[in-house]
Amino acid sequence: MKARDLRLVADHRFAWQDHDPRAKCGFRDRADAEARLAEDVTKLGAFQDVFAANGTYGLVIIIQGVDAAGKDGIIKHVMGGLNAQGVSVHSFRAPSPQERLHDFLWRANRALPERGRIAIFNRSYYEEVLTLRVNPELVQAERIPQRLIEHDLWETRFREINEFERYLQHNGIGILKFFLNISKREQLQRLLARIDEKEKNWKFSASDLETPQKWDAYQDAYAEMLRHTSTKHAPWYVIPADRKWVASLAVATIVVEHLESLRLAVPKPVPHDAERLALARAYIEAELARIDEGLPDHS
Amino acid sequence: MKARDLRLVADHRFAWQDHDPRAKCGFRDRADAEARLAEDVTKLGAFQDVFAANGTYGLVIIIQGVDAAGKDGIIKHVMGGLNAQGVSVHSFRAPSPQERLHDFLWRANRALPERGRIAIFNRSYYEEVLTLRVNPELVQAERIPQRLIEHDLWETRFREINEFERYLQHNGIGILKFFLNISKREQLQRLLARIDEKEKNWKFSASDLETPQKWDAYQDAYAEMLRHTSTKHAPWYVIPADRKWVASLAVATIVVEHLESLRLAVPKPVPHDAERLALARAYIEAELARIDEGLPDHS
Repeated sequence: MKARDLRLVADHRFAWQDHDPRAKCGFRDRADAEARLAEDVTKLGAFQDVFAANGTYGLVIIIQGVDAAGKDGIIKHVMGGLNAQGVSVHSFRAPSPQERLHDFLWRANRALPERGRIAIFNRSYYEEVLTLRVNPELVQAERIPQRLIEHDLWETRFREINEFERYLQHNGIGILKFFLNISKREQLQRLLARIDEKEKNWKFSASDLETPQKWDAYQDAYAEMLRHTSTKHAPWYVIPADRKWVASLAVATIVVEHLESLRLAVPKPVPHDAERLALARAYIEAELARIDEGLPDHS
Repeated sequence: MKARDLRLVADHRFAWQDHDPRAKCGFRDRADAEARLAEDVTKLGAFQDVFAANGTYGLVIIIQGVDAAGKDGIIKHVMGGLNAQGVSVHSFRAPSPQERLHDFLWRANRALPERGRIAIFNRSYYEEVLTLRVNPELVQAERIPQRLIEHDLWETRFREINEFERYLQHNGIGILKFFLNISKREQLQRLLARIDEKEKNWKFSASDLETPQKWDAYQDAYAEMLRHTSTKHAPWYVIPADRKWVASLAVATIVVEHLESLRLAVPKPVPHDAERLALARAYIEAELARIDEGLPDHS
């Protein structure tokens, strides 16, 4: 599988029937996939070291999908190979009253990674054209000027998101956007499994039935989002997610391919550095000799 | 090894000769340690799940030590078993001009974990009684009222840190403080190795010689810190760190023991939940039956 197989570039004709949630992306079976995932996860860790050392680019990885689409699992299994020191994970839950007093990209801005670092967004500002669109009463809670609400709110947001992402790309902050595409049937089965799992079913809340109950409205909102915000500089990847092992491996493959495509190198010491290093070495060797001879050192 | 073996509780007589940086803490050898570390790391992940689900406590893990003491390695190898979604790592570098305009605990406050989450501090507010104490010119840069500087600045800071940590403990935010204790000889050898490592020596900077050059001043500042801020509610653990495998395993053992001691359980569903769950199950099963029969669903 290549990243381009799942990449959606500026496709205004996006249609669900072209994207099978049960696709295997050419991966043979689960055992094969798990072995390849382990390899990819190791590669990820190595690429991250170079990414951090290079310090030129930042990376935002956006994971979107309905409840039970497998967002947490992707973060745990694919991103597990990353050194926590260079990664932060942000879960974008319903905005707090304070956050609602700001523009809709404000809290995402605050969560952006420094150069050399990776930020994973579990959900993102895309909820602002998904959850909000399906639940219009939430739009009022955001105190957006009434004039804007009446005049192409969604078109405006799509354009503003595209501009924001292009701005980030131009400034070295790359964006990988993954939409985990699961079928309604698979979602219902996973929700049922959650109820059956004694250790975890205390987590189940009435709101977990929101997406199945409003399934078509959410699908429409996702389709519109994919049609309008898959751009050349920040395309969406539509990940078949009915099989968790396919989804994990597809996401890992795409992240690895992205990091590889940057062709980053660690900085090389410049001649001036060589001289500095030689001086430091001489100092350290002299100190070590003193310690080994039991002489008082220079400190 | 038990956590209490390395715990330093309110010991005003702390002396370096009682703490051997080469101690093995009863661990047999490297191979044995690596096997046990793998076990501990797996346990850590499991405890973290319960910690997150319980959501009553937060945890701050402070890693202090001079350059090359192995702070980054501990974070990578011990904390690698944690799910990035529940952890954040904060590296406290020299404060920025904006940070210097605030009180000395301000930026640590902003990095505190929510309940259910773990924050790892790579260095911390303890630099404010270490680096600052060794480099008095930095005190002026902090714009602290002159009266305070002249009157027991360090005693005041020790007291304020102790009060801050007691406050956090009382509010459910636990604190584990690790001091990585390496010998000057080991530090010099690691710095030399950094110079020799072609791939990484661009990182070496003149400031890396600061601690060896001011070794005794730093040892004195650390000793004073350990004497004054190792309290019952937030003791320091003095980790023998000349052997990286000993340090990793000791830290992992102590974190696991801490999480175990909290005796946390995941929340149990209450009777009301059972009814709610039964209703949700009925809804989901009906929807699944409709899908399987090819009938239009309710969405």
